[in-house]
Amino acid sequence: MSPLRLNKIGIGLIGLGTVGSGVVNVLRENKKLLSDRSGVELEIRRICVKDISKLRAVKVPRSFLCTDPELLLKDPSISIVVELAGGIHPAKEILQKALARGKYVVTANKALLAQESEVIWEAATRAGVEIGFEASVCGGIPIIQALKEGLVSNKISHFLGIVNGTCNYILSSMSSAGADFHAALKTAQKKGYAEKNPTLDIDGTDSAHKLAVLARLAFGAKIPFEKIHIEGIQKISAADIEYARELGYAIKLLAIGKRSARGLELRVHPTMLPLDHPLSHVHGVYNAVFVRGDRVDDLLFYGRGAGMYPTASAVVSDMIAIAKKIHAGGAKASAHPMPAVPTKICPMDETVCKYYLRFQVADKPGVLGRIAQTLGKNRISILSVHQKESRDAKSVPVIILTYEAKEKDLRKALSQIDHFPESCENTAVIRVEK
Amino acid sequence: MSPLRLNKIGIGLIGLGTVGSGVVNVLRENKKLLSDRSGVELEIRRICVKDISKLRAVKVPRSFLCTDPELLLKDPSISIVVELAGGIHPAKEILQKALARGKYVVTANKALLAQESEVIWEAATRAGVEIGFEASVCGGIPIIQALKEGLVSNKISHFLGIVNGTCNYILSSMSSAGADFHAALKTAQKKGYAEKNPTLDIDGTDSAHKLAVLARLAFGAKIPFEKIHIEGIQKISAADIEYARELGYAIKLLAIGKRSARGLELRVHPTMLPLDHPLSHVHGVYNAVFVRGDRVDDLLFYGRGAGMYPTASAVVSDMIAIAKKIHAGGAKASAHPMPAVPTKICPMDETVCKYYLRFQVADKPGVLGRIAQTLGKNRISILSVHQKESRDAKSVPVIILTYEAKEKDLRKALSQIDHFPESCENTAVIRVEK
Repeated sequence: MSPLRLNKIGIGLIGLGTVGSGVVNVLRENKKLLSDRSGVELEIRRICVKDISKLRAVKVPRSFLCTDPELLLKDPSISIVVELAGGIHPAKEILQKALARGKYVVTANKALLAQESEVIWEAATRAGVEIGFEASVCGGIPIIQALKEGLVSNKISHFLGIVNGTCNYILSSMSSAGADFHAALKTAQKKGYAEKNPTLDIDGTDSAHKLAVLARLAFGAKIPFEKIHIEGIQKISAADIEYARELGYAIKLLAIGKRSARGLELRVHPTMLPLDHPLSHVHGVYNAVFVRGDRVDDLLFYGRGAGMYPTASAVVSDMIAIAKKIHAGGAKASAHPMPAVPTKICPMDETVCKYYLRFQVADKPGVLGRIAQTLGKNRISILSVHQKESRDAKSVPVIILTYEAKEKDLRKALSQIDHFPESCENTAVIRVEK
Repeated sequence: MSPLRLNKIGIGLIGLGTVGSGVVNVLRENKKLLSDRSGVELEIRRICVKDISKLRAVKVPRSFLCTDPELLLKDPSISIVVELAGGIHPAKEILQKALARGKYVVTANKALLAQESEVIWEAATRAGVEIGFEASVCGGIPIIQALKEGLVSNKISHFLGIVNGTCNYILSSMSSAGADFHAALKTAQKKGYAEKNPTLDIDGTDSAHKLAVLARLAFGAKIPFEKIHIEGIQKISAADIEYARELGYAIKLLAIGKRSARGLELRVHPTMLPLDHPLSHVHGVYNAVFVRGDRVDDLLFYGRGAGMYPTASAVVSDMIAIAKKIHAGGAKASAHPMPAVPTKICPMDETVCKYYLRFQVADKPGVLGRIAQTLGKNRISILSVHQKESRDAKSVPVIILTYEAKEKDLRKALSQIDHFPESCENTAVIRVEK
């Protein structure tokens, strides 16, 4: 074959933190591999940062750095704007301007896509350019591409995702070492797997951002972010993890998107999964997404969901894909990556689930009877009951697994049971998926 | 947004067996979904079959059917030729003609790609058109796209693939039910998971075809098919599976591609994997590919590797991807999907592995000493020794796990040991990966 004619494609970077530094390194260190494989050469021409004097993980020519994104946006030699700054403002405005000027965009900004994707995609469609956002969900796992392209011929019935490595690390070490939540969080922080302020990770917000991006593609539906039900892992106890395992389950923080007769279910919460479910074997900081399509049946994608290089891998693959299209004659974004059809979102109250309930009650005769009666009155059928040894001498844990029940009914039953004089704590509730 | 202008893209199908029927059904039943998502409409215009009168799993207008591929190739209304006939001839010639006439090609033909991919890709590059072959490996799992695009910025160090559902089903049921190979094969045939003549599956040839396709993309190297080392699962005994599990391992038929200091290792053989390896949990007919990239680290792709709909899902996703490009202005195949760089293939003799060895020897004093001595003389160090209870009163199984050793040295040692008067059978050898 004749040698490839290399086209140079100008890149403007916004943000030079961990992922940005990873991107600079990948482009440098894998330069020959990338140009061999793609026939194009990606050249960073300008990098917009908040503070030029800050010490960076990579060395870049001082002349590349600027603090005004406008310098980058008006540079005609830059074809692709790569946004790695995060946050909604000013990222949204910068990307809107970039798109309006016909620049292609690659972004890892899940918060922005979760909350403003329609605005961004409309701007892209208007401008006829593409947006790459593989890095916004699950780092190096090519799940966005799979949903957009590989599974395009499938109607997706549901997906279950372990999409936050911090939470999975904490739950895994609670499970393997029996550590309690706070000790596990501290270890995660020490190892660099949790941030100093870990709130957005452990309260489920980060998972909800990723759920919104995945659901948009999987279901071709506009996802109102505020309708996602979000619970974090703060209330999960080492005891619940142990009891769950005795019953044959693992506890994972899942981002769940599901078509049901009641509409589209969108929820992030700790979930009990049977130990033979592929997601039960996803440990530590690893992420995984389980997808069921009407044609392809069950699929699982597994890998590192965060970190400098896994995320940079996704960013650079998007850059290469776009660069190849520019090289091949400037492909236009022919249509929305997945146009939205009107879809009803199922309110959380209407969701139907199996439940694990741990009642912490005074060890008196008749308590179990009253609990069972109250559940029954609220149309909740009991699958099994397990009374455990007391851990604190004050109360005994009574664990009940239910058949499928409506969230609204469960909440009503628990609001009654939690007011029993024998109830020592609010009931622990974990939803069960299969 | 304004309503999409639908472009009709003409399709010619070659072959209307299981997968072909699946493709016809997916295009029919998911028609609206596909056109909503892609902005194009795929229209089958002609189907080339061997026998027009044969009863089919789907109803198609009789006028679509023909037996002469030329009718399909010369039809100017057909833009994409979808080859699902299998086999090397006449598939190769048909695809060459299709490409020469500027038609895009989608194929599920792993045997053809394993042995003739350079010819096919050169023809495609010359014609400036693309070939989709997602369906050639692991059915519905989008592993081809991941290697071509999602992981483009990675230097892949190795991949391990469970790529044949028949073998994985047999090994899984040998493991869970303790069945012997022949009983497990019979059950697989009864359930439709193995063909009447299962040779190409169980002897590893099918896995080697898929290894060739994956390795071509993962390593950007021309893969001489005849240099792939191929062993099937026929010799695996229920006893070895049990002993392996006692030692903490599962036995899987793996397709292995690995860069090493000695060159590119390409081998298909039964392999012992630690039980905590993600591939150890892949049971039944499921396929999975484990990939390690220098940037993305470990990834796993899991799903159904065969069957009407999983495979049709992959075929249709390729058709849609190509149709969108045609719609967007006829994208040219700008370069080879992964150009080849000269790469040394490591001869099997030079491969370095850990080994599980089961010696079946007469229970006499001194035998173990002679075995150990012979291994030592051939530079093979012993990691552990396990003498098991006799199962047949004639011989005792002695199991030795070795440290890393060279295949050539191992073969030499075994050729000596197998000639010991105390040796009752040829030594069972299973390679160990981590």
